[in-house]
Amino acid sequence: MEFPSKLIENAVGELSKLPGIGRKTALRLTLHLLKADTETTSSLAEALAKMRFEITYCRTCHNISDTEECSICANKLRDHGTVCVVSDIRDVIAIENTGQYQGVYHVLGGVISPIEGIGPSDLHIDTLLTRIPDSEIKEIILAISPTMEGDTTAFFLSRKLREFPDVHISTIARGIPMGGELEYADEITLGRSIVERQRQAK
Amino acid sequence: MEFPSKLIENAVGELSKLPGIGRKTALRLTLHLLKADTETTSSLAEALAKMRFEITYCRTCHNISDTEECSICANKLRDHGTVCVVSDIRDVIAIENTGQYQGVYHVLGGVISPIEGIGPSDLHIDTLLTRIPDSEIKEIILAISPTMEGDTTAFFLSRKLREFPDVHISTIARGIPMGGELEYADEITLGRSIVERQRQAK
Repeated sequence: MEFPSKLIENAVGELSKLPGIGRKTALRLTLHLLKADTETTSSLAEALAKMRFEITYCRTCHNISDTEECSICANKLRDHGTVCVVSDIRDVIAIENTGQYQGVYHVLGGVISPIEGIGPSDLHIDTLLTRIPDSEIKEIILAISPTMEGDTTAFFLSRKLREFPDVHISTIARGIPMGGELEYADEITLGRSIVERQRQAK
Repeated sequence: MEFPSKLIENAVGELSKLPGIGRKTALRLTLHLLKADTETTSSLAEALAKMRFEITYCRTCHNISDTEECSICANKLRDHGTVCVVSDIRDVIAIENTGQYQGVYHVLGGVISPIEGIGPSDLHIDTLLTRIPDSEIKEIILAISPTMEGDTTAFFLSRKLREFPDVHISTIARGIPMGGELEYADEITLGRSIVERQRQAK
């Protein structure tokens, strides 16, 4: 695609580096910005730069935060005895949006992936292990996606956490999702959902 | 959706104002930028701001341009006797990419749309009419999308262009697109493609 202007070409080039945005979409976005008033573009550019350069991470749980300690860790009303270990900030947002969890978090910053060259030392595992002694932590929930890499990470963590016999380890429940149809579920999920069936109260 | 940081919330808010980008996609893009090095974000923000604030339009054809006269109008090798009237800069890029057109352009900057409050005076119609006298223009091609608004605009233009009896007016050919199946074509297109059938050379 040839562009009549270098400025447009640059903007399209930069936008199309984003995941899921091709050159045609990038051009559409660029021309949208060009049609809208200048403020739309300046506030977008400013918000992105500010976000990237001013963001900090919580020193305790590595969640994104505007302050040294994130609002979840700083909240005295939350259950600081339960720590939910997730791979990503996105998972914190997803779990928070359920409104079902009252504990605190620990963000690993990824999963162990030998193919991508990510080892245990690249994740925030050390800080999780140093966080436990002399704390009120009673339970650690491993809420890591059940992929190959996620399972490896969960396995590695549960081995490391054997150091702390007083801390309970749990994982999020696996099973048929709400609204999911039995016949379309994969065999492993369906099998586990039968083996780990839950008794109903009478 | 609640975010742990105001900076993230702002970035997601600004990104999701773009067409076709919802809050989930905006969050994915934001977290992608957060993971990539800071340069990715700064060059994106810079490219967008630079594009919006430094862009100029060609004084002759209103195409986007980095200079006072766009590269197409400034090109002496192009046929300045043929002007292709389009509604949008996107159309210029699309026609240029075909490599089939050697003339110059005139960008209207939209189509007449009473619903959106766009009248003929909001488009670059005056400059088209003042461009014709004392010029070498012999043919004007109306390459406007065959929608309700586009047809209205083309009709309005062809009425206005009656002032210039020496200038030929043409429209782009309508018909069955390449690779299109006859049975799926709409009746109007198929009907016109039969009425306006083209003789093959023997």
